[in-house]
Amino acid sequence: MSCDFLALAQPGVQKLSPYVPGKPVDELARELGLDPAGIVKLASNENPLGPSDKVLAAIRAELDELTRYPDGNGFTLKTALAARYGVDAAQVTLGNGSNDILELVARAYLAPGLNAVFSDYAFAVYPIATQAVGAQGKIVPAKDYAHDLQAMLAAIDDNTRVVFIANPNNPTGTWFGPDALEAFLAQVPESVLVVLDEAYIEYAEGDELPDGLDYLARYPNLLVSRTFSKAYGLASLRVGYAISSPAIADVLNRVRQPFNVNSLALAAACAALADADYLSESRRLNDAGMQQLEEGLRALGLSWIASRANFIAVDFGRDTAAINQALLREGVIVRPMAGYRMPNFLRVSIGLPRENARFLEALAKVLSA
Amino acid sequence: MSCDFLALAQPGVQKLSPYVPGKPVDELARELGLDPAGIVKLASNENPLGPSDKVLAAIRAELDELTRYPDGNGFTLKTALAARYGVDAAQVTLGNGSNDILELVARAYLAPGLNAVFSDYAFAVYPIATQAVGAQGKIVPAKDYAHDLQAMLAAIDDNTRVVFIANPNNPTGTWFGPDALEAFLAQVPESVLVVLDEAYIEYAEGDELPDGLDYLARYPNLLVSRTFSKAYGLASLRVGYAISSPAIADVLNRVRQPFNVNSLALAAACAALADADYLSESRRLNDAGMQQLEEGLRALGLSWIASRANFIAVDFGRDTAAINQALLREGVIVRPMAGYRMPNFLRVSIGLPRENARFLEALAKVLSA
Repeated sequence: MSCDFLALAQPGVQKLSPYVPGKPVDELARELGLDPAGIVKLASNENPLGPSDKVLAAIRAELDELTRYPDGNGFTLKTALAARYGVDAAQVTLGNGSNDILELVARAYLAPGLNAVFSDYAFAVYPIATQAVGAQGKIVPAKDYAHDLQAMLAAIDDNTRVVFIANPNNPTGTWFGPDALEAFLAQVPESVLVVLDEAYIEYAEGDELPDGLDYLARYPNLLVSRTFSKAYGLASLRVGYAISSPAIADVLNRVRQPFNVNSLALAAACAALADADYLSESRRLNDAGMQQLEEGLRALGLSWIASRANFIAVDFGRDTAAINQALLREGVIVRPMAGYRMPNFLRVSIGLPRENARFLEALAKVLSA
Repeated sequence: MSCDFLALAQPGVQKLSPYVPGKPVDELARELGLDPAGIVKLASNENPLGPSDKVLAAIRAELDELTRYPDGNGFTLKTALAARYGVDAAQVTLGNGSNDILELVARAYLAPGLNAVFSDYAFAVYPIATQAVGAQGKIVPAKDYAHDLQAMLAAIDDNTRVVFIANPNNPTGTWFGPDALEAFLAQVPESVLVVLDEAYIEYAEGDELPDGLDYLARYPNLLVSRTFSKAYGLASLRVGYAISSPAIADVLNRVRQPFNVNSLALAAACAALADADYLSESRRLNDAGMQQLEEGLRALGLSWIASRANFIAVDFGRDTAAINQALLREGVIVRPMAGYRMPNFLRVSIGLPRENARFLEALAKVLSA
């Protein structure tokens, strides 16, 4: 007989349901016997533009050093980020994707008896990271699928150590403006860490969204989390970062694994940060694709949640499990949202013009069947 | 005024001193104004052979998919590992380096009020991972710098949940045989998870060391941790893995970040696992380099701890801080061991013949100065 190693795990861990990623193309191909080349994946908010040539060159230049450990301090990337954003390198924490940043915050500041406040319909990693350390997640009802910042303020209690907010929000695409952020930050107790997740901010710049970095100097309890996985096109490589006060960055860097970001990822992120053309082309493609999808959805008589990110949550007015399965059989992968308590919605990432067209055609076929 | 975000961090985190990696070549070059090309780094137990051509080809083949998320389940690599070692894929947990595996164990099974048992002079990540979750590290005195497994058994108490053992051990290179492992496993309470860290096992195969995987079927509380960073030459890419009972793997996979190993790392590890020639050449080079270093050290009248890994801990019989500094000025990076409470030792990784020769020359010069 042997012991029950699930029962021996920490209580928070025992109750943990892992994050469910978008279905990989190869997995769908295996399951349904489809040709991977014919599959369109619009499920993980990936950049459809394909890799930047400058990034590819940076990776190739790093391959000679494959047997060496990464620079655990990420000196070059942190210096480049600091220069770009006018902050000190001591304010930067690098993560193995911004997922890592969110977990570092949870491990540093949450524990049983403490809680984190976040919105309903917000990124799935907020409750997972909170649960993993045995803390309580206080889920605040959303308002028209968007963050209700006033209700979130009201939910903060003496045991709240972290508030997670996202702008734009994933999976809904909703956003809030500078006035709302300012009013929120001004009222949050200064001992509560506000994690402003800006994973999609590059798609919204110049719109009516605030730049979280503008608020750091006045709010030392603010941390801005960003990623190279979306507009910078490096999802495969896992690079995210936080910018915060040096004190918070010091704590997170203690918790961080010494080589959490690998060498090729560090080199690629440096190149991506310098490739302004790639970023602006990503933005242009996204704006055009958003218009294409909205027109197509309108033609199908569907509604959706207005989005400032690189995806749209489409409202089918009924459970979408069967629609999702039918789309998979058509070789189109989108993201079911039942796990977000939005079973009537499917989240569709914005792809290339031909991918968006494939999705709309497949959807028309499925809905008319 | 602002809050003290160090004081707000979890008690275990507040006391955390991060892992100190080997000094990167570029960092030493910056600090001392040296030519990076002239620096020899024998500080991080990296594979001196340079990258495998098959690994490089696998990485290049993956570059088209850079904007896509990794396969969060690591299907191909887990399948390959399972086939190689005759286990089920459900017994495999992938880590962002084996460092990640060690932390997953700590986060799943340790907490304040619980403890982990490990040896003095063992891998620095055992106390760090334990401390990070607020658990107690019970350090057991070593015997001739090696694990004293009987004393470790005696240190296990009702609050012990994990024992970390390494074979061969880093940073000492010491090892234990099959009989010692068997006797240990037979006496460890079945509710205590034994983490057998075999990061360096590929250098010792065929020697008098046990293969931890042979014991898994009889000891469901055993977890074997391995890495692609050493003999497989992928330190830059961060791939480690654990093989355990499916129950333990299930728990660790809940705690694991969904994309903890990136796409290029997954592809590279698959190629490395299949490249038997690279592995045997690594082993051959290491055996020859060990002999070269031992002869050189003997000629200098120095002693060392006998090692079955890819490094030697050299005993100078006096504090080595000044010797280490002098070696750095000669452009030779080795690893000081004061952080391991072994201030009289320097750990030297086995390099290429010319690198070993450069180290021995520099050492002779420094010692005669």
